[in-house]
Amino acid sequence: MAHTLDGKTAVGAWEGESILSIVQFSRESAQRVLDVADEMKNMVKTQGANDLLKGKLLANVFMEPSTRTSSSFQAAMKRLGGLVLCVNESSSSSQKGEILHDTIRCLASYADVIVLRHPKKGSALIAAEATTKPVLNAGDGVGEHPTQAMLDLYTIYSEFGDMATFTGKVVTMVGDLKNGRTVHSLSKLLAMYGAKFHYVSPESLKMPRDVYMELSEQGIVQNETTDLDSVIKQTDVLYVTRVQKERFENEADYNAVKDSFCITRDTIKEAKSTMVIMHPMPRVGEIAREVDIDPRAAYFRQMENGMYVRMALLALVLGKA
Amino acid sequence: MAHTLDGKTAVGAWEGESILSIVQFSRESAQRVLDVADEMKNMVKTQGANDLLKGKLLANVFMEPSTRTSSSFQAAMKRLGGLVLCVNESSSSSQKGEILHDTIRCLASYADVIVLRHPKKGSALIAAEATTKPVLNAGDGVGEHPTQAMLDLYTIYSEFGDMATFTGKVVTMVGDLKNGRTVHSLSKLLAMYGAKFHYVSPESLKMPRDVYMELSEQGIVQNETTDLDSVIKQTDVLYVTRVQKERFENEADYNAVKDSFCITRDTIKEAKSTMVIMHPMPRVGEIAREVDIDPRAAYFRQMENGMYVRMALLALVLGKA
Amino acid sequence: MAHTLDGKTAVGAWEGESILSIVQFSRESAQRVLDVADEMKNMVKTQGANDLLKGKLLANVFMEPSTRTSSSFQAAMKRLGGLVLCVNESSSSSQKGEILHDTIRCLASYADVIVLRHPKKGSALIAAEATTKPVLNAGDGVGEHPTQAMLDLYTIYSEFGDMATFTGKVVTMVGDLKNGRTVHSLSKLLAMYGAKFHYVSPESLKMPRDVYMELSEQGIVQNETTDLDSVIKQTDVLYVTRVQKERFENEADYNAVKDSFCITRDTIKEAKSTMVIMHPMPRVGEIAREVDIDPRAAYFRQMENGMYVRMALLALVLGKA
Repeated sequence: MAHTLDGKTAVGAWEGESILSIVQFSRESAQRVLDVADEMKNMVKTQGANDLLKGKLLANVFMEPSTRTSSSFQAAMKRLGGLVLCVNESSSSSQKGEILHDTIRCLASYADVIVLRHPKKGSALIAAEATTKPVLNAGDGVGEHPTQAMLDLYTIYSEFGDMATFTGKVVTMVGDLKNGRTVHSLSKLLAMYGAKFHYVSPESLKMPRDVYMELSEQGIVQNETTDLDSVIKQTDVLYVTRVQKERFENEADYNAVKDSFCITRDTIKEAKSTMVIMHPMPRVGEIAREVDIDPRAAYFRQMENGMYVRMALLALVLGKA
Repeated sequence: MAHTLDGKTAVGAWEGESILSIVQFSRESAQRVLDVADEMKNMVKTQGANDLLKGKLLANVFMEPSTRTSSSFQAAMKRLGGLVLCVNESSSSSQKGEILHDTIRCLASYADVIVLRHPKKGSALIAAEATTKPVLNAGDGVGEHPTQAMLDLYTIYSEFGDMATFTGKVVTMVGDLKNGRTVHSLSKLLAMYGAKFHYVSPESLKMPRDVYMELSEQGIVQNETTDLDSVIKQTDVLYVTRVQKERFENEADYNAVKDSFCITRDTIKEAKSTMVIMHPMPRVGEIAREVDIDPRAAYFRQMENGMYVRMALLALVLGKA
Repeated sequence: MAHTLDGKTAVGAWEGESILSIVQFSRESAQRVLDVADEMKNMVKTQGANDLLKGKLLANVFMEPSTRTSSSFQAAMKRLGGLVLCVNESSSSSQKGEILHDTIRCLASYADVIVLRHPKKGSALIAAEATTKPVLNAGDGVGEHPTQAMLDLYTIYSEFGDMATFTGKVVTMVGDLKNGRTVHSLSKLLAMYGAKFHYVSPESLKMPRDVYMELSEQGIVQNETTDLDSVIKQTDVLYVTRVQKERFENEADYNAVKDSFCITRDTIKEAKSTMVIMHPMPRVGEIAREVDIDPRAAYFRQMENGMYVRMALLALVLGKA
């Protein structure tokens, strides 16, 4: 019941806490996640797995499919010696708020920690209120996906070596910034570290005004453009997202812009040698395969980091980090 | 092949035995399950998990979806250190008797114990005849669901402290008593303990005559009514089931009765303080959320008990209890 | 990247190698699999499970359903103390080559070994090229299914005691030899051991010419017939596959032949007492249930052998055999 999201419920004690939103993180608590994720990465590289969460059971509840996220949570729990109960239910055997409450309360009586992916915004909070056991939000529709934001942060931390020197670094977000839950969360999170932003998108898919205003009020420098070339040279982090055809009114509009938001070897040829290229994956052509061998391409390392960050969060909320 | 259900194949030796029907249980063998379930509950509360079934593999075969039952069997096996192989197949890739035989014989060659949920009555027996390894019936259509009946019994045992003093206690079953497999099995099981019954249902959804007659022949007191209020004060166990709209010929008939079978704070305000409220779950409005905080509401404890009872049964048939 | 299938990439060093095709096997490397499978069988019979692959994680990726194959890989990994991540995706959420590459690269960043079943030929090779971790092909459409061929070989080895005396033995393959991936692979594999073949099928479902020619060039004796009775007495291995109604132009054609390819007690009454009857399963009537109790019926032992062979392959490619 202590999982209200009034912006004041910061994580900190960790054990038993639910992770529902990035607003729960301060720089201090985020740093704790980064540090533990580093330990986890080191453990996996040297041992493969350990018994830290022996006897603990995760209910990995996916009410909509998400291979990548589901797999990384499962792998995370298992590499820590924990047990996993997979619950995959289509949202079509559809779940009213009240029933989600009962489902979670049921699963929480079998398990020690719940991971929930759900198509409907607010579901994670309903889940957290149904049990005293920790709930990790693995994406609730257009709501939040805090473990994605934390793995993005961990990737930046890993690629740059630390966050202390990140102030003033230039983050360029490219693609569909209107509908991309990922970029909304990440921009808010990086604002804590004094990042500057370029938002590169078609006019119709700009960063939502509420996100823009929230960062403006914090004095964060933000620039909007449709021209990636004009900002690529200053960019320290290039965060690419998919531009989906379905978001456009007609195919002509889509065809007019799609190539402007596709990253090729050519796009990045004059970019910094230290630039970090990220993508939340899966991609469908936004980044050409030829870019994969570029050392700046961090998106596969980013995926792998998802496992370490989720190991860290599971260990933390189970009081074992 | 020793799994015939002639009413004489009582469980007792346990190791290697299949659990197909509640008719296999005597008071003595049922008590063994209750005692072991108590040990399991105690183990989970103190240790979380142990290694009792280390090296044993459960094939958890669900030919129709059932999150709750499937999850509790998985959790049960894993908390005992056992391994789980999940097989989820839609009954639409449909399974003739002969093929079910082969499927089970295949899975039994990989696993040490089989749990089977199947939409068709008699499937559990087909499965048990296909292998010498123990088969646990997790529901076979309109047939049996013995582990549900045992967890209901364990809940009553837990709430009252023992079964010895249960003789003469009043069990009121409410809702769709015609189609509810659960209430058929439970009434037969509780008859062994000398319970008295009120059956509260719409006229069209009364307890089937064969169940009624079977209990009558044992001298069990049974009363049928459509009026819950008239019996609530004498009730020791209130067992609520869902009244499904689809069971009625028209919506008017449904609307005329539905509220009579919905439990609210008001319904139970003059009931005994020691009354135990149960529901096999999931509910869809038969018990108002406001009842959840009433200490008499046992349905969430009942769900949790499912895991302990299934742990007990797995350990027993694998010869490890 | 070392997983090219040019016919020269024989397995041998084992650790880190992918198993994509039976063409990778020499008699020597095949024998290694048979020997390790024997050890695995012995371990399971005496201990049930061990910790050989403790800390190793298998991503068991099934892009089309296959209960039997998926289950035996899961059971294999778990009985060796390994961890399993199940990924089941319908091929309808359809996977272009490029995306399969990314999916596998993602899962390989969580796991130590990949098993892939995919409806499209060539998928296993795409997967193997996406990662440096070993990939086991669990069937790629009309392509290969090498672990099935190896379990068939192991069954023959087990039933006969060794492969040294197999030269000159008569293998009769019955049913749909045109579309049966299994018989194509197995005939090539057994050719290494000097088997002689009878191919018994309807005219329209004969062994493909390329397979026939490949064996002819090696000097292998092959005979084609539509009459099982004419060859049953000389047969040492009777390998039965399903004749599917859908493969015929009309039902009359199907009805005309179907009974000729169904094995009953009568079919085999004059066959050798040492003959071994095999079937890749599932069957739909090609072998009558009455044959199951015949000691020559090896198809259930064959299924069980699948687990031991997959245990062997997992241990070998993970460098732990």
